[in-house]
Amino acid sequence: VSKAEDLRQQFAGKPRELLPTPALLVDERRLMGNLQKMAAFFAAGPTRLRPHAKSHKCSTLARLQVEAGAIGITCATVQEAEAMVAGGVRDILIANQVVNDYWLQRLLTLAGKCDLKVAADAEKNLRQLSRAASAAGVELGILVEVNVGMGRCGIDAGPPACALATVAAQLPGLRWRGFMGYEGHVVGIHDRQERFAQCRQAMTLLTQTVDLAREQGLVAEIVSAGGTGTYEAAGRFPGVTEVQAGSYALMDLAYRRVLTDFECALTVLATVISRPTPDRAIGDAGLKSMSTEFGLPEVAGNPGVALRDLSEEHSIFSVAGAHVTLAPGDKVELLPSHGCTTVALHPYLYLMRDGRVHDVWAVDGRGGG
Amino acid sequence: VSKAEDLRQQFAGKPRELLPTPALLVDERRLMGNLQKMAAFFAAGPTRLRPHAKSHKCSTLARLQVEAGAIGITCATVQEAEAMVAGGVRDILIANQVVNDYWLQRLLTLAGKCDLKVAADAEKNLRQLSRAASAAGVELGILVEVNVGMGRCGIDAGPPACALATVAAQLPGLRWRGFMGYEGHVVGIHDRQERFAQCRQAMTLLTQTVDLAREQGLVAEIVSAGGTGTYEAAGRFPGVTEVQAGSYALMDLAYRRVLTDFECALTVLATVISRPTPDRAIGDAGLKSMSTEFGLPEVAGNPGVALRDLSEEHSIFSVAGAHVTLAPGDKVELLPSHGCTTVALHPYLYLMRDGRVHDVWAVDGRGGG
Repeated sequence: VSKAEDLRQQFAGKPRELLPTPALLVDERRLMGNLQKMAAFFAAGPTRLRPHAKSHKCSTLARLQVEAGAIGITCATVQEAEAMVAGGVRDILIANQVVNDYWLQRLLTLAGKCDLKVAADAEKNLRQLSRAASAAGVELGILVEVNVGMGRCGIDAGPPACALATVAAQLPGLRWRGFMGYEGHVVGIHDRQERFAQCRQAMTLLTQTVDLAREQGLVAEIVSAGGTGTYEAAGRFPGVTEVQAGSYALMDLAYRRVLTDFECALTVLATVISRPTPDRAIGDAGLKSMSTEFGLPEVAGNPGVALRDLSEEHSIFSVAGAHVTLAPGDKVELLPSHGCTTVALHPYLYLMRDGRVHDVWAVDGRGGG
Repeated sequence: VSKAEDLRQQFAGKPRELLPTPALLVDERRLMGNLQKMAAFFAAGPTRLRPHAKSHKCSTLARLQVEAGAIGITCATVQEAEAMVAGGVRDILIANQVVNDYWLQRLLTLAGKCDLKVAADAEKNLRQLSRAASAAGVELGILVEVNVGMGRCGIDAGPPACALATVAAQLPGLRWRGFMGYEGHVVGIHDRQERFAQCRQAMTLLTQTVDLAREQGLVAEIVSAGGTGTYEAAGRFPGVTEVQAGSYALMDLAYRRVLTDFECALTVLATVISRPTPDRAIGDAGLKSMSTEFGLPEVAGNPGVALRDLSEEHSIFSVAGAHVTLAPGDKVELLPSHGCTTVALHPYLYLMRDGRVHDVWAVDGRGGG
């Protein structure tokens, strides 16, 4: 019996007041609405959805995405991939370079358990993957990562990327499957027209590389790109076969300022532990349960209460005055500014239906990264 | 066999190159030096050291602190306290209000297993603690938390705090033990003279309250205060019986800018996964393995390499040029800007001796907060 099962037995049907705080809550109606809306967009094809699990690190949620039509799951880490495969996902892309030898050995054990692809952007890494896969007697699918303008990982588009694909296609133990490119510099642009225009520029770099490779006899089966901010632009761009959007499922304040297609389903529940003055209250959720690199979270549903600051284990609330009732024991929900890094701080999430706990899901892809 | 034991068997004696990254490293020599230096300061007495476990959330490290002379351990959460007690610590102060009913029930189970104290700053909370302790047939030690100027939790110094102590002393199931006050607004002031002057102001508020309570027949056995930035000023202030410093053990960049008494023992190990250009390299440690609320971490020991930015699972390094050797597979260590919130991102820490893994410790107090 897993710990999540224990919590499920303890809290199913119970109101949020009984939960241990800080707790990560997911509104089931909003989550399911987000999943359905994204699934409907991709139902028309030909582009498919491969949701990114880095946003939720939860194999139960990933299975719902696959049941809703997703082709498979994108992962940032081998640990996430292991959780997804253990949870029943059968088609995995690790959209990062796996270079660390420990993680490479763990990666190899997944090769027989799912349709596994991993990103690569350098010949040295390809040779490392080839040696390891050959020694283990398995085959690793390879997507060559192209720098589509973000300037993080990725080899240059065009001839350099095609040359690397040629190497991947020839090395033993590897099976070249296509290209990927993440336009991370674009997904957060607030102006929709500008965001989509820059996304198309990035997708042009990616698909021109695909076309060049085809001319050289290398036909890409997979062309993977896109995020929540660009799912439409990338998802309708000719030649892109799959979109890696992840944040759409749970959403957060930062993405809500970019697009309103999806609802914020994620909150952090705090218990008020002190009301020292009429204009101040203190909650038990702090920097260790909410991230702040995209700004402070915001209070949801308590008029007259605003988050002023966070310390490690405390939320410091400004309260409009003595007329605002907020006493020790009361609950406050906070909307994370960045969902992905907030989820990673929690071992479990509580699925809420009609104000009560409907289920408890393990954040089973959580590790140290 | 715990997972830490598995990792110990796998990695003991091995160099950092073999570790799964991102990994949390602790330099044993520096850690032990920090523990010894702080222990030596408090060896003279009469004030004692009660190190704060929120900084390391590790019962193995806490035991070393107790073995070095600490009177017991301070915790921020019940979960930390459970880990410390399970690890053999027998004297615990939870320096926060426990108001959440779930955690209060868990707190009660610790009451028979250690000398347990918890902070309180409101009569409503005292009555809640009293009812719960009485129902469970246990006794909870109480420290009344005084607001010594930080403006977070804590009741006003003087008569209000003394009145609350009177309530605590009279309620069944509770045993009033004394006062605490955390001068969190002071510990980070860079100028030592100013920091100590403001600390003494805060300690004056606290000890005047102690004196007033004594006049009313309430003799405080425990007067707890102080942090790493103020351990000397609080530790030599007449009437303070114990100091709660925690960050001194592992240290971080933020505290290193405040005081140089202790060495930075904590780093996050990253593997270079890409070197796309001569002036850029990418590591596999990002926002999910290092906190940034106190600024970006810094590269330790790689001349010509600087951390430019972090994304969720990536470190983006500026490299001085092609002459700087930094290839996929190479390792980089990063000094956290804030150790407490960085440790909370990791399930284990690797104790390094002479460049090799000497031990693996579970961050067993880690939860969702």
